[in-house]
Amino acid sequence: MNSSAVDPQPTPTTTQALARQVADAMWSRDHATQALGMAIVAIAPGTATISMPVRQDMVNGHGICHGGFMFTLADSAFAYACNSYNQNTVASACAIDFLAPARVGDVLEAEAVERSRAGRTGVYDITVKVRGGKTVALFRGKSYRIEGEVIAGLANATLVQATPVHAKNT
Amino acid sequence: MNSSAVDPQPTPTTTQALARQVADAMWSRDHATQALGMAIVAIAPGTATISMPVRQDMVNGHGICHGGFMFTLADSAFAYACNSYNQNTVASACAIDFLAPARVGDVLEAEAVERSRAGRTGVYDITVKVRGGKTVALFRGKSYRIEGEVIAGLANATLVQATPVHAKNT
Amino acid sequence: MNSSAVDPQPTPTTTQALARQVADAMWSRDHATQALGMAIVAIAPGTATISMPVRQDMVNGHGICHGGFMFTLADSAFAYACNSYNQNTVASACAIDFLAPARVGDVLEAEAVERSRAGRTGVYDITVKVRGGKTVALFRGKSYRIEGEVIAGLANATLVQATPVHAKNT
Amino acid sequence: MNSSAVDPQPTPTTTQALARQVADAMWSRDHATQALGMAIVAIAPGTATISMPVRQDMVNGHGICHGGFMFTLADSAFAYACNSYNQNTVASACAIDFLAPARVGDVLEAEAVERSRAGRTGVYDITVKVRGGKTVALFRGKSYRIEGEVIAGLANATLVQATPVHAKNT
Repeated sequence: MNSSAVDPQPTPTTTQALARQVADAMWSRDHATQALGMAIVAIAPGTATISMPVRQDMVNGHGICHGGFMFTLADSAFAYACNSYNQNTVASACAIDFLAPARVGDVLEAEAVERSRAGRTGVYDITVKVRGGKTVALFRGKSYRIEGEVIAGLANATLVQATPVHAKNT
Repeated sequence: MNSSAVDPQPTPTTTQALARQVADAMWSRDHATQALGMAIVAIAPGTATISMPVRQDMVNGHGICHGGFMFTLADSAFAYACNSYNQNTVASACAIDFLAPARVGDVLEAEAVERSRAGRTGVYDITVKVRGGKTVALFRGKSYRIEGEVIAGLANATLVQATPVHAKNT
Repeated sequence: MNSSAVDPQPTPTTTQALARQVADAMWSRDHATQALGMAIVAIAPGTATISMPVRQDMVNGHGICHGGFMFTLADSAFAYACNSYNQNTVASACAIDFLAPARVGDVLEAEAVERSRAGRTGVYDITVKVRGGKTVALFRGKSYRIEGEVIAGLANATLVQATPVHAKNT
Repeated sequence: MNSSAVDPQPTPTTTQALARQVADAMWSRDHATQALGMAIVAIAPGTATISMPVRQDMVNGHGICHGGFMFTLADSAFAYACNSYNQNTVASACAIDFLAPARVGDVLEAEAVERSRAGRTGVYDITVKVRGGKTVALFRGKSYRIEGEVIAGLANATLVQATPVHAKNT
């Protein structure tokens, strides 16, 4: 708004670019999601969609996907969504309702949507579906912002200008 | 065991033997828990303790164990506890509170305790600790009994005599 | 399906009429919601909106609405939504995230939306807002269908013809 | 108050006295719990037991206690437990599993136990029973410490000497 050179307002373009940059930085050091075969389908401020194929080693004794892996996928989508502002944020509590089983070969997709963000905490709803098919789980996560940035020092660089908009929400 | 015409009452010994037999049967076909390096520490009717070492491929970008694996461990302890009566039982909903991070090399232990069991549903509390150390997560799971047995046909065999005691609880 | 005269397909009109009839029947014997000053704002199959003014006797020591009353309002919206098919349904588990306080004189509105319904269980999301203002709580409820109907015998009367459509979902 | 140079260590006696003082102060301005006929059965650091008789105006259309009142009772026990250190603390999230119905005339008792307390957050388990009878609900609450004290200024008075022990836990 204030068109001073030193403090431009963040625009949808810059917040989107920030979300992408943060996701790439997180991904590069995220052994767990890589080892599970996940892929980022979409990322934007406050939202993320991540996919994961159900493998044989994710299956329990009943021949269906262990609920823990459905949770882990949802939790990853949650993490990428709530960290998309480049403020280090962790999960403090999560709840999941299992609706239907998933099987080997299914590709699961988890979409995280921000329901609330104020102060240090946020609430995100994550829906887990079989790609092109039914919903298998509903996940709700509570986030807690801790110290630091995902990309350290970015707050003092160009893209930092995205941060004031967050302050308004907090 | 006793092929008497009258149905003998189940004893702590027979229900404990049943819980162990069921756990072994589940384990033998449970790719997921085996692939994650889990081990059954203890099993008894309505309770189970399972361990899992935190590996490098369970770690996220912050160098700490992905919450999804802490959940998966707790969910496995939950599954072995709520299936210990040889009645097929699945998780319908779970909630987890994350209290502290776990790191590569930590051995986590999840202990599941039955808080309620009536009709088709049960509630179990699972505490996840670093072995010999602090509690890192509190998990509460809701179970739902479906058709069938973990060890099919067992209800008509010797150990079946454990089932009447369950009927009393339901 | 079978276009026999005796089993006509339910239409949006009949399911809506059923939802309204059921809500009226529940309301007439619902001491709790009446005593709390609630009012049904909207009702339809699988959804309900209920309002409640925050009174002095709902306030705790900090001068804000006791969270229990925000929960109770959400739980009522949940109950009217999940019973709207005239099949007796109860809450088996609920979770609530408190986002902001409500004060004496605020009129709260809780809107329940169905996220899933299959077999005996359903999942509903309820959003509690100050009328015309901010969201104060997010509630998620798990329903469980038990025996019987809200309006007993209705299943054998005209409107019963709404039930086949539910069977498809289960 | 005691102008001794050395800070005396809090003792079980002083923390217990503080918990009681705080509970009395909260109670005196707590319209909601008083209007619902609740009574404090026991109070101690991190724990509280509160009772409530189920009245006719707490009953829903099925003649059973509205789940919202069972939640409200549990939430009150939670509040008195997590505020017992005289640090203003609010509920950020709660989950409840309903196990059995309660009826008019039943006296319900909710006992809150601290499962975790670190930094600003805590986890409390609340069990709701019919007095002398069965468990009707299991509640888990997450607390969040905000600014201020329940009894303002107490931190600079005698009982303040209880606070160092909290610091150890956080």
